[in-house]
Amino acid sequence: MAARKKKAVAAKKAGKVDNEVIRRNQKLDALTVDLIRKTASTVHREIREEKKPDLAFPVRSLRNVSYSQKTGYFEMGRQKKVRTLTVNTVKSFAQTLRMMGLSKELVEGNDFATKRDAYYQSKNWEEARFDEQAESDTVMDDIEALFSVQGLSREQLRFIPDEHGGAVAGRLVVLDPDRETGEIERIDCTRFGSGAYSIPSSVEQLSFETDAKFILAIETGGIFQRLQSHKYWQTADCILVSMAGVPTRATRRFIRKLSDECRLPVYAFVDCDPYGISNIYRTLKVGSGNAAHLSQFFCVPQARYLGVTPQDIIDYQLPTHPLVDVDIKRARDALKNDPFFKTHKPWQKAMDQLLKMGVRAEQQALAKWGLNYVIEEYLPRKLEQTAGFLP
Amino acid sequence: MAARKKKAVAAKKAGKVDNEVIRRNQKLDALTVDLIRKTASTVHREIREEKKPDLAFPVRSLRNVSYSQKTGYFEMGRQKKVRTLTVNTVKSFAQTLRMMGLSKELVEGNDFATKRDAYYQSKNWEEARFDEQAESDTVMDDIEALFSVQGLSREQLRFIPDEHGGAVAGRLVVLDPDRETGEIERIDCTRFGSGAYSIPSSVEQLSFETDAKFILAIETGGIFQRLQSHKYWQTADCILVSMAGVPTRATRRFIRKLSDECRLPVYAFVDCDPYGISNIYRTLKVGSGNAAHLSQFFCVPQARYLGVTPQDIIDYQLPTHPLVDVDIKRARDALKNDPFFKTHKPWQKAMDQLLKMGVRAEQQALAKWGLNYVIEEYLPRKLEQTAGFLP
Repeated sequence: MAARKKKAVAAKKAGKVDNEVIRRNQKLDALTVDLIRKTASTVHREIREEKKPDLAFPVRSLRNVSYSQKTGYFEMGRQKKVRTLTVNTVKSFAQTLRMMGLSKELVEGNDFATKRDAYYQSKNWEEARFDEQAESDTVMDDIEALFSVQGLSREQLRFIPDEHGGAVAGRLVVLDPDRETGEIERIDCTRFGSGAYSIPSSVEQLSFETDAKFILAIETGGIFQRLQSHKYWQTADCILVSMAGVPTRATRRFIRKLSDECRLPVYAFVDCDPYGISNIYRTLKVGSGNAAHLSQFFCVPQARYLGVTPQDIIDYQLPTHPLVDVDIKRARDALKNDPFFKTHKPWQKAMDQLLKMGVRAEQQALAKWGLNYVIEEYLPRKLEQTAGFLP
Repeated sequence: MAARKKKAVAAKKAGKVDNEVIRRNQKLDALTVDLIRKTASTVHREIREEKKPDLAFPVRSLRNVSYSQKTGYFEMGRQKKVRTLTVNTVKSFAQTLRMMGLSKELVEGNDFATKRDAYYQSKNWEEARFDEQAESDTVMDDIEALFSVQGLSREQLRFIPDEHGGAVAGRLVVLDPDRETGEIERIDCTRFGSGAYSIPSSVEQLSFETDAKFILAIETGGIFQRLQSHKYWQTADCILVSMAGVPTRATRRFIRKLSDECRLPVYAFVDCDPYGISNIYRTLKVGSGNAAHLSQFFCVPQARYLGVTPQDIIDYQLPTHPLVDVDIKRARDALKNDPFFKTHKPWQKAMDQLLKMGVRAEQQALAKWGLNYVIEEYLPRKLEQTAGFLP
């Protein structure tokens, strides 16, 4: 109830220019520039004092990751690697500082750069230029990890992914302030016919108005198109998001922000196979191992698994394919090594059941009972028992 | 001039329900059902007359493809394979007829199915069920080829791709009639903020209003996001389409339909490497070898190549990567075996130049001169000399 009311108030406030959002973004930008400046000033002071300056970056690897149900996502541990300025490290040290400088410029100019953009920008940095994109990617990741400790996301540093996000349709208005004028564009996701709203690479500036009851995150374009063309979001009072496989960062961040700010539950609807469960769903919900410094911003801990479950294969007599070696290996790996599956008993049971059954099923397998069975039977039945969804 | 006028008239006509578009679609649907019925009736009659009925499908392979500059796309030749009803072929014959029946049902119910949907639907066809999706895909492709001879596209048969299309932004209003009511949704592609319009899987029902001067088809999400966030479509009076690699069928069909109906030139902006040129651009322009029966609907013969050209690498002193073996093989294959490159001398010269230079360059390499150099310098300069674009 409180959430509903809050939404209504937020909706009323949204005028031509949403000053609150703009002020919040400006404050964050000022903080970002300040942090970059402080970090660089410390280095500068130490050089003048003839000390050896250093920068300490969190270690980015699975070894340095922890998972607890309470926080709900993969968290970076406390291990750090220290880069000290010496004759041998002078180049990478300089590159790190230039990359931070680039971020500062981007924030100040309200622009952005992808990893690839940043790599090519460096071609004009003379001795500090990168020879390979892999090198500049690593430096960018380090800087992201460094500032994530202070609560700044990569997008806040104005580094954005090369790929944009998935498609969205349903009971949602997206508010997007213009880069230059701050004027708000109101994007009504009920008004796209058979098409949809394509999520931009960076979603930090967005805010939302909605009276939907939940977000449905869908693996395949085929099912998304079916639900969108039949306006399922109208019947079910929801917002549809097409992930198109493993969701991009922009898609994950969009779902997370929308769910947080509008207090909407998120239900995932994916294929019943080890890939759909341990890659697509797991990444959506808790993040991925080698990018744990991003999890706090990019994963959706509140997501729950609507289906297709191994039990659905039996209950709905779905057509299946046999599990192949790579499926079996993936499932066993998840059970043995993945902190997420090791934490959740119901998932261990479900994964064991799938391995015993030796088969997998795609979400479109429901079409066996009619193309719109998914709309008319499967989803309504499932949504009556959300409490039973896998965690 | 005439084109502009026509557009204005079309714009005026678009009321709440665009009756012209609906009538045109209804006529096409009636024709489709009629053709399916006739094909099936012939088979039925021959069975009753105790003859052996057969169905003749065009051969779908590169051997049966021709290219001429005049038609502008890969055309299917006259080779046919004949499937005669015998004891051995009874199952695949029955499956073909059931698949045609499914198409008829879909047209009549104004619904659609993806390849995967159709495969799972067959699970209820008893003896005619498919065991593997590869089998049902082949049957669907054959039916498409059969009816394409009569001028019907796959989408007209209501078979739609599993993946949806790319993203669109700029000076364009898309008109999309509601599946049930026929009411027109007007989708203004200037009003998506930093986001974009996501093209639906099937675009046959769409019509357009625009005063743009051209369509810019872009390979990477990174460049698309830059142009969109900086509203390049406003400065340059154009429509931006993100292909995100090799364009999906929905994206190609959308560009083709938009270009045909609004008489807009199409300029492609891709990486300068054998993949960007011979896969992305070639597929956009003339189609692909193993799906030539679709080219007449799905390729964009009027597309021209804005860049990045091999000469641009020199003129703009772009950072490059060396060509690797697979690049060199791809380029040599194109020169030797691809009817498109064999027809166009300027492309042979450009490809030879690239091979001699031994390097490739990405479109984002322009960022060397500043992140917005592409907007402020490169594109304006290029667009002053469209006549010089590669064919």
